[in-house]
Amino acid sequence: MKRSIEDTSIVFIGAGNLATNLAKAFYRKGFRIMQVYSRTEASAKALAQLVEADYTTDLSTVKHHAKMYVVALKDSTLSQLLPIMTVGREQAVWVHTAGSVSMDIWNGLVEHYGVFYPMQTFSKQREVDFTEIPIFVEGCTLEVATFLKEVATTLSRKVYEADSLQRERLHLAAVFACNFTNHMYALAARLLGKNQLPFSALLPLIDETARKVHELSPHEAQTGPALRYDENVINHHLQMLSDEPRLQEVYRLLSRSIHEEGRP
Amino acid sequence: MKRSIEDTSIVFIGAGNLATNLAKAFYRKGFRIMQVYSRTEASAKALAQLVEADYTTDLSTVKHHAKMYVVALKDSTLSQLLPIMTVGREQAVWVHTAGSVSMDIWNGLVEHYGVFYPMQTFSKQREVDFTEIPIFVEGCTLEVATFLKEVATTLSRKVYEADSLQRERLHLAAVFACNFTNHMYALAARLLGKNQLPFSALLPLIDETARKVHELSPHEAQTGPALRYDENVINHHLQMLSDEPRLQEVYRLLSRSIHEEGRP
Repeated sequence: MKRSIEDTSIVFIGAGNLATNLAKAFYRKGFRIMQVYSRTEASAKALAQLVEADYTTDLSTVKHHAKMYVVALKDSTLSQLLPIMTVGREQAVWVHTAGSVSMDIWNGLVEHYGVFYPMQTFSKQREVDFTEIPIFVEGCTLEVATFLKEVATTLSRKVYEADSLQRERLHLAAVFACNFTNHMYALAARLLGKNQLPFSALLPLIDETARKVHELSPHEAQTGPALRYDENVINHHLQMLSDEPRLQEVYRLLSRSIHEEGRP
Repeated sequence: MKRSIEDTSIVFIGAGNLATNLAKAFYRKGFRIMQVYSRTEASAKALAQLVEADYTTDLSTVKHHAKMYVVALKDSTLSQLLPIMTVGREQAVWVHTAGSVSMDIWNGLVEHYGVFYPMQTFSKQREVDFTEIPIFVEGCTLEVATFLKEVATTLSRKVYEADSLQRERLHLAAVFACNFTNHMYALAARLLGKNQLPFSALLPLIDETARKVHELSPHEAQTGPALRYDENVINHHLQMLSDEPRLQEVYRLLSRSIHEEGRP
């Protein structure tokens, strides 16, 4: 059976940050979002309203005749719920959106399945431009992979096929480049806030740090006291953090790690 | 004596990343760079050529009649060399550019002194737009502070006065927001490189992570497995890092730290 992206109706299982942003992007491109499931009624309802969909908090009432089911749940919930949600809906294409979960999770449950992984940081409060987001797809057959690529191409100019091994490596790197990076911003914000200094003072520095690695490799772009191994500054900073043992531990480990990576 | 920024001739002590970028910015604005000192001849010469200055590698031959001396040395070298370099040049304004060094370091050496701290990450290979760089100045007298503000205003739209205590806190926060952030990029690049995946795939994510905190606080912007406390993913990632004990340690500490900061 040849699948066409025309009239692709979609059910979203999950209404978190990723589901919200992805469902909105599909909706804007004219896909029909049939229904949103979330365990949390407020989340299901909020997303359903945004994309003119029905919603449910009961997996057994998830609609049966969507062409595609997009499962965007916390990874630990995912494997528990898959067997329940797929029963009676085996004709559709099923995808999950998790960087670190293998495609094989679908094995034996449904016939047409794959992965649809947009590598980006999503928050409900913030609109993102999907056209620039790399989307990594994987399909259980050539037919499904082609279908998912077609679907992804309606949203983004950067669509790639990646197998489960490549995807989990991308995801791990993304945790460093995004989640840990944002945590560095958060710790900086906390240090400034304690001293009534505005976080906004750091924005030009944050922006330049990101822009810089478009031109130089991160290794070449590295600067700062840890790289110079400026012990005066490092020790002074550790002392300034004496009332923040966790930040002190982070400072010490990352300074050592920078030093061990070595000079450009 | 009222100091005017007209005909301000400048000697640079140091020819590293910061000195290079700052000297070039002054030069472009029409300041006369008289001389560049660096212990390393190649560095002194390279910068001197860029800004049409003389150069020396011998502190005793540093010119005597500049209006301003900008000292941009590694912090540990700074305090050793100050007494040597200032002798016979006490009439000028002396500034250092170090975030974490107190203004008092000049005390008893010269009469007109202060700090000129552009809070940015500088690499010799990369041009930066100085107009957006916050410059924090401090002067030993109102007269010097005013002079430094005037000088800084020729380069940047964002000039602030900050005392030594505020400046060292800004610098510490900057280490987190910039140096540690760039190190996260470097570790991500290493993980991808090991698997022949291109670092450029992460750039949209890196850019969005930076853009996001213009709109949301970093605390609100946080996402990822550590925040969700998704133990499946965290344990899987730690296992993937089993051949990289240092990265594993970083992953473990930062995941714990994110979790302890708590949900938005």
